[in-house]
Amino acid sequence: MIDLEGADALLLCDDSESNPDLHWASGFRAPDAFSYLWTPARSYLLLGDLELDRARDQSRVDEVLSSTHYGRLYRERHPDAPDTDRALQSLTMALRDLELNRLVVPASFPLRTAELLRDAGFELRAATDPLFPGRAFKRPDEIAAVRAAQAAAEQSMAAAADALRRAETRDDALVLDGEPLTSERLRRLIHTVLIEAGCIGEHTIVAGGEQGCDPHNTGSGPLRPHQTIIIDIFPRHEATGYFGDMTRTLVKGTAPAPVCALWEAVRAAQAEALGQIRHGACGRELHARVEAVFAERGYETGEVDGHMQGFFHGTGHGVGLAIHEAPGIGKAGTPLETGHLVTVEPGLYYPGVGGVRLEDLVLVQDDGCDNLTTFPLDLEV
Amino acid sequence: MIDLEGADALLLCDDSESNPDLHWASGFRAPDAFSYLWTPARSYLLLGDLELDRARDQSRVDEVLSSTHYGRLYRERHPDAPDTDRALQSLTMALRDLELNRLVVPASFPLRTAELLRDAGFELRAATDPLFPGRAFKRPDEIAAVRAAQAAAEQSMAAAADALRRAETRDDALVLDGEPLTSERLRRLIHTVLIEAGCIGEHTIVAGGEQGCDPHNTGSGPLRPHQTIIIDIFPRHEATGYFGDMTRTLVKGTAPAPVCALWEAVRAAQAEALGQIRHGACGRELHARVEAVFAERGYETGEVDGHMQGFFHGTGHGVGLAIHEAPGIGKAGTPLETGHLVTVEPGLYYPGVGGVRLEDLVLVQDDGCDNLTTFPLDLEV
Repeated sequence: MIDLEGADALLLCDDSESNPDLHWASGFRAPDAFSYLWTPARSYLLLGDLELDRARDQSRVDEVLSSTHYGRLYRERHPDAPDTDRALQSLTMALRDLELNRLVVPASFPLRTAELLRDAGFELRAATDPLFPGRAFKRPDEIAAVRAAQAAAEQSMAAAADALRRAETRDDALVLDGEPLTSERLRRLIHTVLIEAGCIGEHTIVAGGEQGCDPHNTGSGPLRPHQTIIIDIFPRHEATGYFGDMTRTLVKGTAPAPVCALWEAVRAAQAEALGQIRHGACGRELHARVEAVFAERGYETGEVDGHMQGFFHGTGHGVGLAIHEAPGIGKAGTPLETGHLVTVEPGLYYPGVGGVRLEDLVLVQDDGCDNLTTFPLDLEV
Repeated sequence: MIDLEGADALLLCDDSESNPDLHWASGFRAPDAFSYLWTPARSYLLLGDLELDRARDQSRVDEVLSSTHYGRLYRERHPDAPDTDRALQSLTMALRDLELNRLVVPASFPLRTAELLRDAGFELRAATDPLFPGRAFKRPDEIAAVRAAQAAAEQSMAAAADALRRAETRDDALVLDGEPLTSERLRRLIHTVLIEAGCIGEHTIVAGGEQGCDPHNTGSGPLRPHQTIIIDIFPRHEATGYFGDMTRTLVKGTAPAPVCALWEAVRAAQAEALGQIRHGACGRELHARVEAVFAERGYETGEVDGHMQGFFHGTGHGVGLAIHEAPGIGKAGTPLETGHLVTVEPGLYYPGVGGVRLEDLVLVQDDGCDNLTTFPLDLEV
């Protein structure tokens, strides 16, 4: 797991729904906070009675401890203790019982809990991120889980493309089965398909025309023909908690020439990056290659009238129990290694023309990469 | 907002998707981390270029600052600074520029960021939870947002009840339209209806028979007739981020007499609690009333064969931007106040009989409460 550098144990206190390190280390998903302890000899969960049985079934720790039990013990020994901070009281008691005094905690460990533990006599040292560099290297079961989420993303993308294909144009807006085809409606369709595939979709981007020029705009209102529509889907598989991630840019009808050129540039940049990815390829250099492809074609990046345009986000990021995790492919990128699972998602955004992003998810291998994304690259539907 | 007690500013650093305090204070939803600063005179967001425009449109702060700008400034003044911790560098620079040196941070503030800020010369004090007691008092727009989520929950509950009603029994398991009716299938149906209503459902509980005796078991496999089926739905409204929360316990077919008695006890306990709720009613006493109703009917709570049975969770909790928030109605409950929005959800769980929970969501008022839940209380479908 990690080098304790003389400390007795690693301690995490959080809910594993929002803390992927905790989920990864404990193998236990819970929406309520609990504690995880790891020593080279033994690992523990400390949690409430409601979760004990499930934790014993599902977690990968050596022992599941009852916070109710330790809380009771604490109050027996400290009959005058205040009736607050019960989670801290049982944690304190468990740590003393296990004789774990010097603790490593994650960088994100809650400050007040740290201060109270220090007041109670424990030594705490905050680790630096990433806490578990091993999380970037995917095990076969993790790759399978991401594949399942990516397959669901592809199913929902196919449904979205099909809806656009079947849509008609009335008054310069798309209409499907007699009702306006809006970003919201297409997003609902995507999310419904994801549910059928066992996934949750959230913040899915369906951004048409000018909206697509802001990469964080999720899109709203009527979709129109002959404009870019960026569709970025990153479902989380309910059973495993792992994410998929993919983006396509589609145009209903005929794409204007500047849109075609933009799309071709992004496709070329993505192909260039995909062709370079292998064990040892440096994220920083991959990102620079993408920038070079855009520069060669005359696509400049910079602020115009207070808004960024061109290519102003990273080329890719790791995907797993978090939608964005190590390693990054960007200005601060480091060498990729076999077993990393990363997106490759160059994009170009020019108000007045449109936004284009193409995103695949690939597994880095010794001599290349395995693309988990099979959805076709087509602009016009 | 809060009393700074001599400090210059309140500082939050997190993503507002997972930090409801940050969402509530800033009015800005973002899945990536950003900083929020509040002084009695002025409030600020500090975030990356990709989010600047959206933050200016959507947040309720006085000024949106560019972390890129402050990062550049930092590196101009510290040309030898390492190329890491860029978020911290721009935060440091912004704090110095705004002359904010003594900071209050939330209890959950990340330890390492706190230590690095202290190393850089800032004073930090961790506040105690709840950071914003005002969050428990819902504004009209927040009540409307929860109402919308609750209405969606009711729609999806109606769809689930209807599916159970239409199901047939074959080999002691439910079948609908020729396919087995499982927990997973009913959950998918619920989630699909929620999506149509603009909501995301996650971790929805559809737990039949023995599974329902573990309140945290979300349920899996075939649903059966003449058994309790606990359905607990807590959707999040996509547009607002607010939650709804409701539970019904249904039996397809005829409920055995012990199940009827269990259900009647829970209904009586819920009615008792609902009848007592008003401004000034104490959460601890409401919880004790529920326990008393169960005790009067002979339903005991305790550990049997290592498993808890009876009534072993709280009576209710606040609902808003978090699914569980202040105030709690339980052993540590405090007086409820007008404007609080709380669940009332007694339950009884006995292996061999079944699990029953009934949950409504109510707005506390001066002389009673307004029940946001209109879905009928019926056991058999």
